[in-house]
Amino acid sequence: MDIASLIGFLLGIGIITAAIATGGDVMLFVNLPSILIVIGGTFGVSLMRIPISDFLRSFGVLGKAFLNKREDPAVLIEEAVRLSDVARKNGLLALENETIENEFMRKGINLCVDGHDPAFVKKMLSQEINQMISRNEVGQDMWKGVGDLAPAMGMIGTLVGLVQMLANMSDPSSIGPAMAVALLTTLYGALIANCFALPIVDKLSKVMLYEKTNKELILETISGIQEGMNPKVLESLLNSYISDKKRKTDNE
Amino acid sequence: MDIASLIGFLLGIGIITAAIATGGDVMLFVNLPSILIVIGGTFGVSLMRIPISDFLRSFGVLGKAFLNKREDPAVLIEEAVRLSDVARKNGLLALENETIENEFMRKGINLCVDGHDPAFVKKMLSQEINQMISRNEVGQDMWKGVGDLAPAMGMIGTLVGLVQMLANMSDPSSIGPAMAVALLTTLYGALIANCFALPIVDKLSKVMLYEKTNKELILETISGIQEGMNPKVLESLLNSYISDKKRKTDNE
Amino acid sequence: MDIASLIGFLLGIGIITAAIATGGDVMLFVNLPSILIVIGGTFGVSLMRIPISDFLRSFGVLGKAFLNKREDPAVLIEEAVRLSDVARKNGLLALENETIENEFMRKGINLCVDGHDPAFVKKMLSQEINQMISRNEVGQDMWKGVGDLAPAMGMIGTLVGLVQMLANMSDPSSIGPAMAVALLTTLYGALIANCFALPIVDKLSKVMLYEKTNKELILETISGIQEGMNPKVLESLLNSYISDKKRKTDNE
Amino acid sequence: MDIASLIGFLLGIGIITAAIATGGDVMLFVNLPSILIVIGGTFGVSLMRIPISDFLRSFGVLGKAFLNKREDPAVLIEEAVRLSDVARKNGLLALENETIENEFMRKGINLCVDGHDPAFVKKMLSQEINQMISRNEVGQDMWKGVGDLAPAMGMIGTLVGLVQMLANMSDPSSIGPAMAVALLTTLYGALIANCFALPIVDKLSKVMLYEKTNKELILETISGIQEGMNPKVLESLLNSYISDKKRKTDNE
Amino acid sequence: MDIASLIGFLLGIGIITAAIATGGDVMLFVNLPSILIVIGGTFGVSLMRIPISDFLRSFGVLGKAFLNKREDPAVLIEEAVRLSDVARKNGLLALENETIENEFMRKGINLCVDGHDPAFVKKMLSQEINQMISRNEVGQDMWKGVGDLAPAMGMIGTLVGLVQMLANMSDPSSIGPAMAVALLTTLYGALIANCFALPIVDKLSKVMLYEKTNKELILETISGIQEGMNPKVLESLLNSYISDKKRKTDNE
Repeated sequence: MDIASLIGFLLGIGIITAAIATGGDVMLFVNLPSILIVIGGTFGVSLMRIPISDFLRSFGVLGKAFLNKREDPAVLIEEAVRLSDVARKNGLLALENETIENEFMRKGINLCVDGHDPAFVKKMLSQEINQMISRNEVGQDMWKGVGDLAPAMGMIGTLVGLVQMLANMSDPSSIGPAMAVALLTTLYGALIANCFALPIVDKLSKVMLYEKTNKELILETISGIQEGMNPKVLESLLNSYISDKKRKTDNE
Repeated sequence: MDIASLIGFLLGIGIITAAIATGGDVMLFVNLPSILIVIGGTFGVSLMRIPISDFLRSFGVLGKAFLNKREDPAVLIEEAVRLSDVARKNGLLALENETIENEFMRKGINLCVDGHDPAFVKKMLSQEINQMISRNEVGQDMWKGVGDLAPAMGMIGTLVGLVQMLANMSDPSSIGPAMAVALLTTLYGALIANCFALPIVDKLSKVMLYEKTNKELILETISGIQEGMNPKVLESLLNSYISDKKRKTDNE
Repeated sequence: MDIASLIGFLLGIGIITAAIATGGDVMLFVNLPSILIVIGGTFGVSLMRIPISDFLRSFGVLGKAFLNKREDPAVLIEEAVRLSDVARKNGLLALENETIENEFMRKGINLCVDGHDPAFVKKMLSQEINQMISRNEVGQDMWKGVGDLAPAMGMIGTLVGLVQMLANMSDPSSIGPAMAVALLTTLYGALIANCFALPIVDKLSKVMLYEKTNKELILETISGIQEGMNPKVLESLLNSYISDKKRKTDNE
Repeated sequence: MDIASLIGFLLGIGIITAAIATGGDVMLFVNLPSILIVIGGTFGVSLMRIPISDFLRSFGVLGKAFLNKREDPAVLIEEAVRLSDVARKNGLLALENETIENEFMRKGINLCVDGHDPAFVKKMLSQEINQMISRNEVGQDMWKGVGDLAPAMGMIGTLVGLVQMLANMSDPSSIGPAMAVALLTTLYGALIANCFALPIVDKLSKVMLYEKTNKELILETISGIQEGMNPKVLESLLNSYISDKKRKTDNE
Repeated sequence: MDIASLIGFLLGIGIITAAIATGGDVMLFVNLPSILIVIGGTFGVSLMRIPISDFLRSFGVLGKAFLNKREDPAVLIEEAVRLSDVARKNGLLALENETIENEFMRKGINLCVDGHDPAFVKKMLSQEINQMISRNEVGQDMWKGVGDLAPAMGMIGTLVGLVQMLANMSDPSSIGPAMAVALLTTLYGALIANCFALPIVDKLSKVMLYEKTNKELILETISGIQEGMNPKVLESLLNSYISDKKRKTDNE
């Protein structure tokens, strides 16, 4: 999943750059004050609209959109069945020596091994899921705001450029280039919103959905293990979380 | 239903092409870099915003919008009554030899014949309905995104073209044609969004609604057959799913 | 109600036509290819986005927006009280010979006379109300789509015209008229959306609301008659559906 | 409240007129056909989209937005406590001789004095509140429609003007003034929507909220009086409807 | 939190001013009638759409967006545990001599000390929370309205300027500067909406959320103290309101 996001980003930027390059000098499209007004203005106003802690955290969330690799739920189910099997045969404490790759599942199993009661374990893990969701929402809110602000800043920059151009029209030959520069901020704003901020928001909401499903599946596993559920029953229960094709069942 | 979609698409495209042709050279409207920037940019950014598996699946969903032929629910009800009649007279196992056209109904009947209990059969079939819905939603999400992105990419392309044109205004006679080319991306973006992506989204949501109604009708049928419901009662129950005119009743 | 809709439509069109006529030649605003591109494109794409059966039905719904005459609920209540009086004095079967103007009420009374039980009668009538609503929604969906598509098609037509004009700017005197023609599609799109399609949608939703209220009032009447409710009680119950001024009570 | 609305309206209009006047001849901005096309078109289409009875009623609602004076709930509470005191000491019938300023409260007290039971009184008063709300919503719907239609009509008028101007560009000196006139309809549309229709909608929704709160407070009062509630308890109950600062309590 | 908001505001304004300054004379962007039309018009119409009391109060709310400093919930929890400890050891009355920084908590504790029953205390405090929320919503509604009105007033100002410019095109050299002035109102409107009003709305909604969480935490504390809850249990209960990292627990 991660690579597609990166490829898509590079593809989008690449195609637009190529289209620019075939039309002439690429440097025509690089204008420092214009970049400053759009990016600086967008982040300045973002600092106004959200608390600084959320502002900083939203950059950490960025990596999730690009680099996140969804763990295959079928693998999680296999692991869950193995652990429930061990717990059934040798008791909950035997789980202490098992190697568990998934961090969230390991945390849950540790809580079981420590002897906490099921209600407490469930509350602790649910809370962690909720905090994962709210962290993700902070990121979505930030980048959604950027998606609104960048085009607005682009328009403001273009208006500034137009006013300056219109006030000094003594040299007709400078009108064209001045207007070209004025339009650059609108272009930057549209690029930032459509090729960066808004796709990030969409991707984050999907990453969150997948992660939430996986974590709920693990929560179900831990509850099942604590209740001493039959591994076969647990497997069929967990399989209802995923689609037909992805199941690794042996009932054929 | 399928043919109307195709006719509508060809009609829309045909009328616009005709309007273009009457105004002069059609080739004026074909510009490779412009096509590249709109289509390439749209799909590149789509890869960013949705996982690659969903991206690929959404093309398969396309066929559904154009080629899907809604099965007449009246025919399904006739079939349901026939099967319930057979089951009532000769028992559930007698259904094994019946030819059943509808795949979903055949699958449900097979589950009955295999002796699974009603709750299990219902759960299996409901899950299949849910997966049909979520597959459809993946397609709707993708094409809705395209409907947003294509005009945005069109605007970006036009801005790029305008900047290039404005920066080189030494030859006045080239201004017009350069601006014509710049406007082409906006035109492409508007065409892709309004004549392709957004109607697809609307059609998919309607196809899903019809398919869901049909499958729920079949689910009701299977439950009725397993409960040994009277065929007449089953018929009147199923008829409540469809409108007056479409019913094939014999109570006159 | 019907006449206001028609007057409003003619007034709107008339005022705009008058404004056009005072400004010069009306024929300036009639351009066949432009009309074709907007109307043809809009209906072509509409065929893509909704099934053909819904497409055709939505024209029948049009008449409802213009010609529908809301039956006065006070008249319905008078009728209901009269019928409940007859049923109370001479029994349900006596209703067979009564002349009932409202079709929906007649249908309900007939079901009572035929001896169907209250639950069945209620289910049959409720279903008819639901189908009336869904028929109306099909119309609203179609014309709402037209309200979105017509301006989009208008913009597409204008872009096509602009590209053609810009590519051939050798004769400066033709620029103005060519651009005038290009703008016509935008004008047509705005007129179709704002003076036809969107008001139709608003009117349909209001017509549906009134019709639904009337039919629910009749449903209440039929239930009351079957339960042998006192005509006076029935009257006060039905009066709660309508506003003070419209009531025809005799308790002064 | 009423005066602020009027002052705001005059301020808005005054500032814009002043800005116009400083820039030159005010009569430049008065153009009869343009006024006709925007106002006539807007009301013509409004007649299409809502029934004529609602259309007419919405003008009566206008006064409410400008002239409505919210009755101070603290005064209502004082009155309520006084009446509940009278009823407690001398019986419900003693209320017959009390002078009650608020019409809705007087109506409620009269229903009590006439000996109707609490459920009936409550139903009658609730119905009156609902009809007040629906009357207000009719007005909101009408003016919201005007807020959408006026800019659309303004755009249509400008397009008409542009087409006429572009078709006759033989006299370059007339282009500027013709375009100035064409832009007037857009200006009128924006003024009607933003300085009249949409603020009216906002004000109406707030007036309704206040009136509804007051009437619910009175409904609570009438119920309390009929139940013979202690005036002190009634006062503290009613005080929960309003903010701290506005309370007139004597418990210090 | 407060400083970030201010820094963000200054950063945004600073960057845009810098961009303007590098392009020439800053005074070019200051035009008194344009400022008057946008700011005066926006506040005039705001007076129309909301009652004058709400209008005035919304300026007081402004400070909250910039200067509000969120109290650390961990500090509140520490305080809560300390107070509950005191109450447990020495009785509720012993709380009278405790110094309590948070005003809302002090108010709650005073109500306890005064001997009011838990239901009354809870009702009083809940009501205060509701009034805090509605005060905040008044501010959000006002500034959201400004965010809509300022760009509309900007457009109206630009249209006025364009009409004046187009009507007097005898001196070509004045066209540019006149249009520059006309565009200024659009620029002002965009700046007010995007760099001031809309970020304020976002910030206010977040400030309210934090304040509400803190006050609910205090409400929980007061209830716990009145019920004589064990300080340890109270602590773990309150900790569920905040994230892992912020907790100050001693169970390691």
